[in-house]
Amino acid sequence: MSYYLKIKKLDIKTGQANIALLNVNEARRYGIRAGDKVKISWQNKRIIAEANTSIKRIKPGQIGLYKDIWEKRNIPVNTIVEIEFLERAPSVQAIKKRLLGKKLTYDEFYQIFSDISSGVLTKTEITYFVASGFMRKYSNEELYFMTKAMAETGEILKFPGMVVDKHSVGGLAGNRTTMVVIPIIAALGLTIPKTSSRAITSPAGTSDTMEVLANVSFPADQIKKIVKKHGGCLVWGGGLNLAPADDKILKVSYPLSLEPYSKMLVSIMAKKVATGVTHLIIDMPVGKTTKIPDMKTAKELEIKFKYIARRFGIKTKVIMIQTEDPVGRGVGPALEARDVLRVLQQKDNYPADLANKSIHLAGELLELAGEAKKGNGAQMAWKVLEDGRAWQKMQEIIKAQGGNPDIHPEDIVIGAHKKYFNAPKSGLISFTDNKMINTVARILGAPADQLGGVYLNKEYGDRVKKGERLFTLYARSQDKIKLARKALEKKTIFKIGK
Amino acid sequence: MSYYLKIKKLDIKTGQANIALLNVNEARRYGIRAGDKVKISWQNKRIIAEANTSIKRIKPGQIGLYKDIWEKRNIPVNTIVEIEFLERAPSVQAIKKRLLGKKLTYDEFYQIFSDISSGVLTKTEITYFVASGFMRKYSNEELYFMTKAMAETGEILKFPGMVVDKHSVGGLAGNRTTMVVIPIIAALGLTIPKTSSRAITSPAGTSDTMEVLANVSFPADQIKKIVKKHGGCLVWGGGLNLAPADDKILKVSYPLSLEPYSKMLVSIMAKKVATGVTHLIIDMPVGKTTKIPDMKTAKELEIKFKYIARRFGIKTKVIMIQTEDPVGRGVGPALEARDVLRVLQQKDNYPADLANKSIHLAGELLELAGEAKKGNGAQMAWKVLEDGRAWQKMQEIIKAQGGNPDIHPEDIVIGAHKKYFNAPKSGLISFTDNKMINTVARILGAPADQLGGVYLNKEYGDRVKKGERLFTLYARSQDKIKLARKALEKKTIFKIGK
Repeated sequence: MSYYLKIKKLDIKTGQANIALLNVNEARRYGIRAGDKVKISWQNKRIIAEANTSIKRIKPGQIGLYKDIWEKRNIPVNTIVEIEFLERAPSVQAIKKRLLGKKLTYDEFYQIFSDISSGVLTKTEITYFVASGFMRKYSNEELYFMTKAMAETGEILKFPGMVVDKHSVGGLAGNRTTMVVIPIIAALGLTIPKTSSRAITSPAGTSDTMEVLANVSFPADQIKKIVKKHGGCLVWGGGLNLAPADDKILKVSYPLSLEPYSKMLVSIMAKKVATGVTHLIIDMPVGKTTKIPDMKTAKELEIKFKYIARRFGIKTKVIMIQTEDPVGRGVGPALEARDVLRVLQQKDNYPADLANKSIHLAGELLELAGEAKKGNGAQMAWKVLEDGRAWQKMQEIIKAQGGNPDIHPEDIVIGAHKKYFNAPKSGLISFTDNKMINTVARILGAPADQLGGVYLNKEYGDRVKKGERLFTLYARSQDKIKLARKALEKKTIFKIGK
Repeated sequence: MSYYLKIKKLDIKTGQANIALLNVNEARRYGIRAGDKVKISWQNKRIIAEANTSIKRIKPGQIGLYKDIWEKRNIPVNTIVEIEFLERAPSVQAIKKRLLGKKLTYDEFYQIFSDISSGVLTKTEITYFVASGFMRKYSNEELYFMTKAMAETGEILKFPGMVVDKHSVGGLAGNRTTMVVIPIIAALGLTIPKTSSRAITSPAGTSDTMEVLANVSFPADQIKKIVKKHGGCLVWGGGLNLAPADDKILKVSYPLSLEPYSKMLVSIMAKKVATGVTHLIIDMPVGKTTKIPDMKTAKELEIKFKYIARRFGIKTKVIMIQTEDPVGRGVGPALEARDVLRVLQQKDNYPADLANKSIHLAGELLELAGEAKKGNGAQMAWKVLEDGRAWQKMQEIIKAQGGNPDIHPEDIVIGAHKKYFNAPKSGLISFTDNKMINTVARILGAPADQLGGVYLNKEYGDRVKKGERLFTLYARSQDKIKLARKALEKKTIFKIGK
């Protein structure tokens, strides 16, 4: 049973759900209640939405569509759409099954991810699915099924020949190595179409930082053109439709800041499968305040990564480095972009740790891909950075992505309000609180506000004198500086020993 | 850090969440993203809401409030409210803890339920809490903690002296015994302040059916007056603030139709504690297509009910009857109300099973409360029904709740469109599909549309002749009849054997 209604575009965005607003009396007559799901069809298109109701704002015969819908889908004004009440999705059965502790088949995972990506499953239903991961750990077979299903329910972006990639599981402040590795590798003629995410719980993702220098949202065909011409790109993966279920799963994982390792693994590998990666280096920082707390956990995860990679024929190496020290000096999009430019342009004040780690990862990737002999990769990478080829390649990429290729590190605008923190005593910096740096950077506005963040004037292992500058806060407003200072009264970033 | 904005009442209702609409640029400046939680305060009141954003509909300096908010809370037009970005609630930590398989303390449950009822926890966070019930079964101690915390985070409705109650766990079509038991018990001078729920997954709850005869939404003080004067009432519990966390938990349980027994138990007992019940009869239908599939499950649940009841000093008896047969002939609010009136007015065509079961339950309650000697309760109840005192009491209650006390069963309006289903062959009705009856009644519009439903002209055990009328569909529109017929092509209600 279906009904025909004329659309009205509403200027409301939830950022999370497709909402259709119905006249309350009409909805009641159709047996639709606020919260029910409806299918909206027009021409040969369709979208699933959640019904909300209104007494006056929507007249009978009308249906109000939230911006979440019409921003994504081009529905002409005054279109008459057909709406149908939707019964419970069959994948709900599979979710129940897993919640009760049973294993799922490939077909069941496919159905779940397909319903997640098409919007058939609500946030609540997706949450139950995520929670089911805690009920019974996923078997390796299940992880493979999930990865495959997640990739196959989205776009597949193929490039000819060998496709290499470098991925960081995240958790460490700064650590913007990707923006150094990609130009190095592309400068050597390899294909490295890098899609990154935006920050979810951290103060900056690679996309947030790259966005300081250029656009990061491109449709698939344009990405293909950029990669064909320049060998690499640095774009936002969320703008494509790669493993689209992942994004929605991430949204319901966010409130609890609970990302089970299995979920992280599947999410990473599904995107590699969807972009046809053949050779992959995974950067996995290990440390109490990062995502992977200890080497035991790291090794278990490595085994699972390699299992999944093998099933898809992806050559993979996991680099586990034990550290809780931020990589680079800036934390927050603008400050991190400045660090990256200092490294690529080999300025005197470039952060050596960021350069070193990037070279290490690039070298490993070159060796894995057979471009360098064992033990020679890092040297090859150094050379490309040193002689300016990496920066030249980055300039090409920035230009291709609509940015200014002649940008200097000092051109980057950072928060106008700042506050220095000096050493309360002399001594050796014996501990850096990675989590606290992230917290403070977020209070200062990062990542939504590019200009906010923390700059570390000193780092772990430095000897400092009383009164010497330790770190600096940057923000767009004095308010945020105040809030960050308040947080720093309880807990600070550096511990100073003897 | 907080901001001041002028409210704008929006005519949009989600039925599920408190939404505040912010101007997108302003929100960004405040560091608020769509989906974040904000606290809205004015005078000495406050409410928690989820932020959505709009470009044009909300001007800077304004905040749009959805109807879900201003319908509940009286906020004068043009009020200036203070808004604050809310960090994660501390109860989220407790939810994580339980999701990872650990037991919670009373204080943790209290925090969770308190945050659920005050709207601090989002739907997603509540869903994780519900899902955590599958991770590790609740211990008896945890069930007691939950019941106590759930009751104590809401209103407490006290009545002097002994307070009796009868509760059905539900799952059986029809089964509207409450509306017969309450007037019988109240007619005998006992205090029985009955609060019921509306249907969630069934075609009618007691409140939906009572609403056909009278109002069911009253504030606490009015309920107290009605009960003081008449000894009983039949009101909707959702209009009060009893165990308010339960309702929100129910909303996230609905999509999966998964109500863990522990959740049902806590939800029932918390409301008994909140209304000061001292003596309680629980009606628990047991059968494959009801909520409790077998006697083993029923007995386990009985033990838990009795454990919780004992901790609160509530005398409780659980009546377990094995059946999958609807009680009464009508299914759907209007048809069920007609059955109830036929029983109370002792009409020739009254459904005997509904009368018998009601008498049985009323009798058990009278014995439990010490009003009748063991074995004499049912007889005492029969007498009150037979001599018209029960109907007289029901008339008082209907009148007190604003209904027409002189209503006759045949006055009740039922769906104008109908369709008879006749026996395809002669034989004995050997099976009634309780679930299918519920499904069909819902397709016909019940419970949102009172007029729709199924009337069973025959029942389990009846011998029928080919062509004899088996059951009748009623609906407000021909469309719904068509849909129900379609569903009945695949699966019917009665099985006819030899």
